[in-house]
Amino acid sequence: MRQLTAANTPDPPYYAVIFTNQRTELDDDGYNKTAETIARLASDQPGYLGIESVRNPDGFGVTISYWKSLEDIKNWKANSTHQSVQKKGQEKWYDHYTVRVCKVEKQYSFHRSPDR
Amino acid sequence: MRQLTAANTPDPPYYAVIFTNQRTELDDDGYNKTAETIARLASDQPGYLGIESVRNPDGFGVTISYWKSLEDIKNWKANSTHQSVQKKGQEKWYDHYTVRVCKVEKQYSFHRSPDR
Repeated sequence: MRQLTAANTPDPPYYAVIFTNQRTELDDDGYNKTAETIARLASDQPGYLGIESVRNPDGFGVTISYWKSLEDIKNWKANSTHQSVQKKGQEKWYDHYTVRVCKVEKQYSFHRSPDR
Repeated sequence: MRQLTAANTPDPPYYAVIFTNQRTELDDDGYNKTAETIARLASDQPGYLGIESVRNPDGFGVTISYWKSLEDIKNWKANSTHQSVQKKGQEKWYDHYTVRVCKVEKQYSFHRSPDR
């Protein structure tokens, strides 16, 4: 359920939450299960536009979620299930993280043509 | 030289370029060397604030560079060495990519205390 390919977002403006994080070495199973659950829950929220999630072998990761409005982001942050996951993140899963809330102002894409 | 940990950015507002990409299976050596070179070159540009770069084992990656202003981003995109690398990216290295230019409006961080 975690979308591991490029999110298919609409024309800007819209919003992005960049979640840059360093995993501890604790509780991989619990973490992976919860990551699935929380990504699924996020995708059911109003204003959700997509998610991109990437992790290096050393545990450094970036997850970007895309949203229609700042209000949608605020509601998702306040979601009670998400709140309890944020708490566990601080207790167990993350050594450190930074959250950046951004307004996407411009986007463009490249796709290789099939005959190249 | 590629910064594989969290970028230490100033208080917002500032700008982010989210580069979401899918590598082809071509030319890993050339790609890795150029990625190093281009990250070093970026870090020497006016307005550069930091970079975060992450790739999944399947070749899906996200690189986020942070900049003081849109003008800095425009100048970096137009840099002649960077231009020739963008061309090679389309010819060889990327199956597809999306570039998103964003204004970072808010950020907050968590750091685990050493005694946890």
